[in-house]
Parts: sequence; C-alpha cells; structure tokens
Amino acid sequence: MDLTHIEHIGIAVKSIEEQIPFYEGILGLKCYNIETVEDQKVKTAFFMIGQTKLELLEPTSEDSTIAKFIEKRGEGVHHIAYATKSVEKALKTAEEKGVRLIDKAPRPGAEGLNIAFLHPKSTGSVLTELCEHPEK
Amino acid sequence: MDLTHIEHIGIAVKSIEEQIPFYEGILGLKCYNIETVEDQKVKTAFFMIGQTKLELLEPTSEDSTIAKFIEKRGEGVHHIAYATKSVEKALKTAEEKGVRLIDKAPRPGAEGLNIAFLHPKSTGSVLTELCEHPEK
Repeated sequence: MDLTHIEHIGIAVKSIEEQIPFYEGILGLKCYNIETVEDQKVKTAFFMIGQTKLELLEPTSEDSTIAKFIEKRGEGVHHIAYATKSVEKALKTAEEKGVRLIDKAPRPGAEGLNIAFLHPKSTGSVLTELCEHPEK
Repeated sequence: MDLTHIEHIGIAVKSIEEQIPFYEGILGLKCYNIETVEDQKVKTAFFMIGQTKLELLEPTSEDSTIAKFIEKRGEGVHHIAYATKSVEKALKTAEEKGVRLIDKAPRPGAEGLNIAFLHPKSTGSVLTELCEHPEK
C-alpha cells in the first residue's frame, strides 16, 4: 500500500468550540483550519503535530454519521487515516486481499485530499481511511 | 507541553494474533516487537509508520482495563500518546491548568518509555498519554 505516515486522526466531538481549549490551551497545538464538509454533514477543525493532523469532527446534522457515532459510542477517536502515494492503487490492493471497502474509488475529502475508507469489519473495528495529496 | 509528534496510537483488540494479518498483510506494516506489560495486564504488539507506532493492546486478564474497555465500547482506538521532552514538566503544566491526571508522576511504560495518562474527563473523552524517551 506504500503507506508513509499517519496523515490524521479523526476525533468525533459534540462541539469543536468546546474542545479547542484542550488542544490549544493544554496541549499547545494550533487550530490552523476550520472547514465544513457539506456532503459528510460535518464541521472539521485541524491541528498539526509532527507529521500528523488531528481532525476534530462535529456533526452539522442529526443524521450525520458522526452524530450517529457519538450517539452510539460517545465522543472519541472516529478513524485513523494513512497517507499513501496512490489511494487508487491502495484500494486495488485491499480489494484483491478481500478487504471490504466503503469507497470503491477515491473521492474528495477535507483539505483537498483524495480519500477512501475501508470498512471496520475488515480492519479490526478501526475505521480506516486512505489519503493522498493530489498535488504531490 | 513541548509535544513533538504522535508517539503511538493504542488500539484495544481481543486478539493480537487475529489482527496481525490486517496490519502486516493488508497495510504492509511490520510487527517489530511483542511485549507483555504485567502491571497493566496487557500484551502489546508494535508497528511503526512514519514517526508513529501503532500499539495493539490485548488483555491478559478479565480485570485488565483493556478487557473492560472492550466489554463497554468494543474493539477500537483506546488512547493517543504524544511525545514530549519531559513528561514531568508536561504533567505540571497540565495540573496547573486544571487537567485531571490519572498519573501524578511519570511511570515506566512499554518499550522503555516514561509515561503518564491524563484523564479523559479533561481531554474530550480521548484517553491521552504523554511519553518521553528517557535516553534522549
């Protein structure tokens, strides 16, 4: 799959505004971007630490998958996203090896990335995302 | 807190043996260490990706905190661990800012690190660990 690093960790939160004081005030990270991803019904806030982003995910609608996640499991880590050079190739590898895919082809995600999700049934219950920077 | 990177992501699993095929066979990572931490009643398996380790955590006893986590929430991400130059200083900063601590002083963790946990009540429900390489 040519995974290079953890691109980000997605964390489901009820309110970004309520969580920023922990990430900025306690951990000392900086929120450098807040972005709404309409088709995922989610507002996102990004912090960088080393190679990795923390992505806070706040539902913008009750039928958002993040709202459902929080209702079922509470706030907490929602997914791990790995950086790869080619999401398309990585998906092909995964499919050939029998992994259940949520996305059969790359699609646009937050921050201009191409992304795809693997199904947690195939990944030990950890929702797993693959990401690629299209410009690199 | 002088956090430099995500040191590791701790993932609660029922069986390390059952999960290794996903991390090695699908993601293409290598399990480079398996270690039992007796006082935490947990067997751990480590994979490196970029700056970050994935740490699979399998309970070795029914009264392990990992066993209780899995019983309550199912398998999945258990904690995020941040690397810092001094866990002691980071704990002092956290305490001064009113963060609830699980560990009031650094203690030995897996792989020879000095570690301490912050309480999820103060961290937006994400169990948060601070780690320091004592030799660096």
